[in-house]
This record gives sequence, C-alpha cells and structure tokens, in this order.
Amino acid sequence: MPTADVSLNLATVRKQWAMPEAVAAAARHGFAGIAPWREMVTEAGLATAARLFRDSGLRVTGYCRGGLFPAADAAGRQAAIDDNKRMIDEAAAIGAECIVVIGGGLPAGSRDLAAARTMFADGLAAVLPHARAAKVLLALEPMHPMYAADRGCISTLAEMNDLCDALGDGLGVAIDTYHVWWDPNLAREIARAGPRIVAHHICDWLVPTRHLLTDRGMMGDGVIDFPGIRRMIEAAGYRGIQEVEIFSEAWWARPGDEVLGVAMERFRTVCGA
Amino acid sequence: MPTADVSLNLATVRKQWAMPEAVAAAARHGFAGIAPWREMVTEAGLATAARLFRDSGLRVTGYCRGGLFPAADAAGRQAAIDDNKRMIDEAAAIGAECIVVIGGGLPAGSRDLAAARTMFADGLAAVLPHARAAKVLLALEPMHPMYAADRGCISTLAEMNDLCDALGDGLGVAIDTYHVWWDPNLAREIARAGPRIVAHHICDWLVPTRHLLTDRGMMGDGVIDFPGIRRMIEAAGYRGIQEVEIFSEAWWARPGDEVLGVAMERFRTVCGA
Repeated sequence: MPTADVSLNLATVRKQWAMPEAVAAAARHGFAGIAPWREMVTEAGLATAARLFRDSGLRVTGYCRGGLFPAADAAGRQAAIDDNKRMIDEAAAIGAECIVVIGGGLPAGSRDLAAARTMFADGLAAVLPHARAAKVLLALEPMHPMYAADRGCISTLAEMNDLCDALGDGLGVAIDTYHVWWDPNLAREIARAGPRIVAHHICDWLVPTRHLLTDRGMMGDGVIDFPGIRRMIEAAGYRGIQEVEIFSEAWWARPGDEVLGVAMERFRTVCGA
Repeated sequence: MPTADVSLNLATVRKQWAMPEAVAAAARHGFAGIAPWREMVTEAGLATAARLFRDSGLRVTGYCRGGLFPAADAAGRQAAIDDNKRMIDEAAAIGAECIVVIGGGLPAGSRDLAAARTMFADGLAAVLPHARAAKVLLALEPMHPMYAADRGCISTLAEMNDLCDALGDGLGVAIDTYHVWWDPNLAREIARAGPRIVAHHICDWLVPTRHLLTDRGMMGDGVIDFPGIRRMIEAAGYRGIQEVEIFSEAWWARPGDEVLGVAMERFRTVCGA
C-alpha cells in the first residue's frame, strides 16, 4: 500500500528497470504514484500500460512530456500539434492527472527565441480545445534557462503564468525545484500561480554540476532549499503529491532499490514531508 | 593602431599567452582595448601592469572581477569588502574603465539564496563610497542562472537594475550576451538600464554545451542573436566598445593568433559591427 504522498517519475530509474518492474518497485517502496514517459508507454503498448497502472493501485501523477511546439516550418508545427493531440488521448487512456508540457527548443538554424516562444503559445492554443474535451490537464513546466536553446524556450514561471492568464481553463503549472530554484521572482510567481499548481517535482542542484542534463541531484545532496520552496507552494494552496524526478548517470548506475530507498528517506528527512 | 571598436578579455587567450604577450597580440590584431583579470595583474605586479597597458595604447575596458560578497560569517564578509576596496585602488592604478562585479555564490553549507543576494547588496553598499572617491565605476554583471549556486547569485539584469536604483551613482551594468540571452525580460531591462550600460560582452551559447564553465562559444558558432541584442543595447543609448570574452577549452587549445583572427572576423561579420 502507498504510504507517503510522493510519486516517482520513472525516468529516475529508467536504466535499471523496464516499466513493469519500475511500477512494481515504486509500489513496493511506498510511493503513492508514478509518472511515465511516452516512450515507455509506447513500448509497452497503450492498453497494456493502462492496465498495468490501474492494477498497480498507484496514481499516474503526470505523463511526460508534451509541448515542444516550435518547428522550422508550418508542416513541422502542425505535426507537433497533431502529436500533442494524440498524446492527450493517450493521457486520458492511462488515467494521467496531467501532461507535463515544456517549451521546446529553437527550430534548427533559428536564433529567434521570441519566435519560438510565440510558436509555443500558438501550439498550446491549438491543442487546448482537444485537451479540454478529453478532460486532460496540461501542466506547463518552465525549464532552467540552460535548456532555452534546445529543450525549453520558456524559462520562467512568470511566462507560464502569463500563458495561463492568456489562454484560460485547462492549463496548470508544474513546478520543478531544479528548474526554478534560482528565480528571484519565485515566491511572487508561486503565489500568483495559486490553484493552477498541479505538479510539484523535486530534484536537487549539485555543486559542481558536471553535465547539463544528466547530473541532477538527489534531494539533500545539493543546494536547493526544499522546505522553503514547499512552504511557498503550500502557502499558494497546493498540498498535493510531490514527484521525484532525477536524471543522473550516478544514480542510474546504482541498484534501483537503493535509489528508491534513498529517495523515500530523503523525501521524509529533507523535503519537510 | 586599433582599428575596430572591440576589446579583448584576456581570459579568452589565457592558456596561450602570459599577459604581456596577450596585450601585444590584441594590439597586433586590431583590438582597441583589453580587459585583464586580477590574478594576471597580481602576477605581473601592479606598476608593471599599469605601464604595460599605458604603453600599449589600448583601453582597459574592464578589470575582472569584483563583488563575490556572500560569505559564511561576518569576518568573511568584511574580508570581501576589504578586498574589493583594494581592487578598486588597483583599477584606478591601471586605468580600468570599470570593475566587473558579480554576485558570488552561496556561502559554504548555505541553501539560502535570498540571504546571499542580501549579502551582495550590503557588500556593494559598503564599497561604493570607496569606488566613488576613486572614480572607479562598478559594472554589475548578472550571471547565467546555472551559476547561481557557486559564482553569481544575481541572475537577471532586472535585479542589477534594481540595485542601481537602490544604491545610486557609481554603479553601471555589464551585459554579457552569454549570461542574459535567454531572459524573457531582456529588451525591457536593457531599455531600463539605458545610460547605466557600461560594458557589452560578447560570447555565444553552443548547442550542445558540454561543460557549464568552459564550453562557451565563438560568436556565430551558437544560437545567440548578436545583432538583435546589439540593437537593444544601441536603442538604450550605448554605442561603446564590445568585449570578446570566451571561456573555452576548445579555443584555448588553438593558437592564440588564430583565436584572435577568428574573433575579429566574427565580430565584423556576425555581431553587426
């Protein structure tokens, strides 16, 4: 039975286990939910994945990851819109509580970040009716500015809040400590997000950080003030589940059960749970 | 004779040449200025460095780098203040047009970024009278958020503009494309900085970036829109010198004359000079 209000993003143990084993391990370690990635669901097959999640008794706290709308031409942008619509249908089929949506990078050859941001907003507007009809929430996740070029052209919670203001119902925000901890406007923008907060991801920033993508830290091993950010989020009204999401060659090299044991212990002792 | 309105930050060729050779090479390649680092000046000796720069006929567009005020205790913070005052005297002695000032990282063991930012503001206020008396301008440089933990706790131009507003005369801002290019508020904050802009550093963001500190790019090799940022800066009233500052193992491994030749050519063809 789940014993803690914490979910496991399956990327955290993606090199140790295939999805069925990872889901079983999450349940065994007391996680109350899991968040799968699309390639895992595709590999397992949608119906099989849906049954696996349902039978596990775990919540599906997020489905990773949509958005990524910028593209070099209109056909590419339409393809991204169509793909996001399919992903929305998949999210509904697996009972995911939200799709995690990121900005996407600059189109190949482009140096126009403002244009990429506009493409993101336009793509979001284009898929939102489909998401509303499917009752699938889109959780907009700002990414650390070091990913602005190649993964997430939307870097701040302020920008995602602006998009929620502009586009209305069916949108929320996903706050990942790793992406936002440095933001001087974090407290203000978390308060502003208020009831739009639908996901709270936890991951630490290591000093030094040796790789931009795959040297993220276990909670407590870095410099992020988890209780401080949690208090901001709780003050804004969110008291829901937190999701452990760590991309780390170091942790991928360790036994999955060890990783989940440490993650659960750190969640309790470091994150103020 | 200098032929282009571009300066060379000597860190760009720090592994190829000692300071005297680097200064001579800058002059030979047509740079109109240089920006030395403090350890270079210390190694050469202050009087020797001052004479070297004067005899070169080049401008000293910046002295790197001050600030770094956060420290774990009051003695550490006072030591940083005292050290910055000495650096101000050195800057006056070498005829530097400004000191480049960065936030500094979190004190050892700290996870309190807000406190570090306050320490930075307090340290700045403490040294500012000394800088004014010496007529040395302090150029506040926001650093990319990926350095917030260990180098620069002030990440945005907005924060540096706020400090200029709060503390008054004697302060300016240094805008380095590498640090600020991702900022969704960049145009607004450059316009706000206006006459406070005292330095414009150029360096590209590579995709992929393989190392957080030493994989910066030559202008044109990455994704930064140099003409776009230059237009913002010119619209704000700054039409002064641009300074090439590239930390790169790849460029450090190439002959210094090749690096300066390429930098000068890219300045002309990429940066809209």
